[in-house]
Amino acid sequence: MLYAEDLHPGLRFPYAEFHLSEQDIIEFARTWDPLPSHVDPEAARQGEFGGIIASASHTFAVCVRLTSDAMMAQVAVIAGKGIDGVRLHKPVRPGDTLSGHAEIVERRPRSQGRAEVTFTCSMTDQSQEPVLTMTGTILVRGCQASASGP
Amino acid sequence: MLYAEDLHPGLRFPYAEFHLSEQDIIEFARTWDPLPSHVDPEAARQGEFGGIIASASHTFAVCVRLTSDAMMAQVAVIAGKGIDGVRLHKPVRPGDTLSGHAEIVERRPRSQGRAEVTFTCSMTDQSQEPVLTMTGTILVRGCQASASGP
Repeated sequence: MLYAEDLHPGLRFPYAEFHLSEQDIIEFARTWDPLPSHVDPEAARQGEFGGIIASASHTFAVCVRLTSDAMMAQVAVIAGKGIDGVRLHKPVRPGDTLSGHAEIVERRPRSQGRAEVTFTCSMTDQSQEPVLTMTGTILVRGCQASASGP
Repeated sequence: MLYAEDLHPGLRFPYAEFHLSEQDIIEFARTWDPLPSHVDPEAARQGEFGGIIASASHTFAVCVRLTSDAMMAQVAVIAGKGIDGVRLHKPVRPGDTLSGHAEIVERRPRSQGRAEVTFTCSMTDQSQEPVLTMTGTILVRGCQASASGP
């Protein structure tokens, strides 16, 4: 487990790979963002992008999942505080494979040994082109506080 | 359909209601953010919040879905550009019912009659307390461009 003391700026967490099929994109969007450009292949073909693209919410969820596995699962997170500067650099299309990394950029000490930790998420596609970037802030437990209770 | 010309600052889109059960929270998190605080009721009971809380990604997805239905479904959106200032004001718990509104805050004209439109999303719980706020930016088609093709 990584505590506040361990999260030095520059520490990097490489993502696994996440593949998205057309069916994945349509199924997610039917529940979470049922617009024609995400759920209707024929309408999408005649639209701005010439085919189905993933909902921004889906692209975001993939980035959070990759970050959850690569970083959060081994960090003593108390809570997420916020997310800034979510930028959708290019649309995600069926067949894309997403990867990238998270990186610690700042650590601000708080009471009880805790720290507020800011990190960037950089998600790329199979051409190594940026797809989504964002900055997250979490509250993290210190190693001492953890030993003595929640 | 609402085009760039129609999206005046101050225009408000009230959300429907969205209810979340413990099962909903666990199922979403199993796929998208499988941390103990979201998927393991026993571990969560002993954690910071005394029980399961929704993944930030789930809370975000609900806000996008409410915005999609209330606003995006009737706006001539070309693409999402980005999201800023996502703030998680309080954790979402099983049994919460989320609602709120989106509101246009700025419209910046672009070429071909298009506009970049910035809007805020304000999601509250059943106590009318803020749960998530954020600001989105979309590129929207003008009504003339729309009449003459994609």
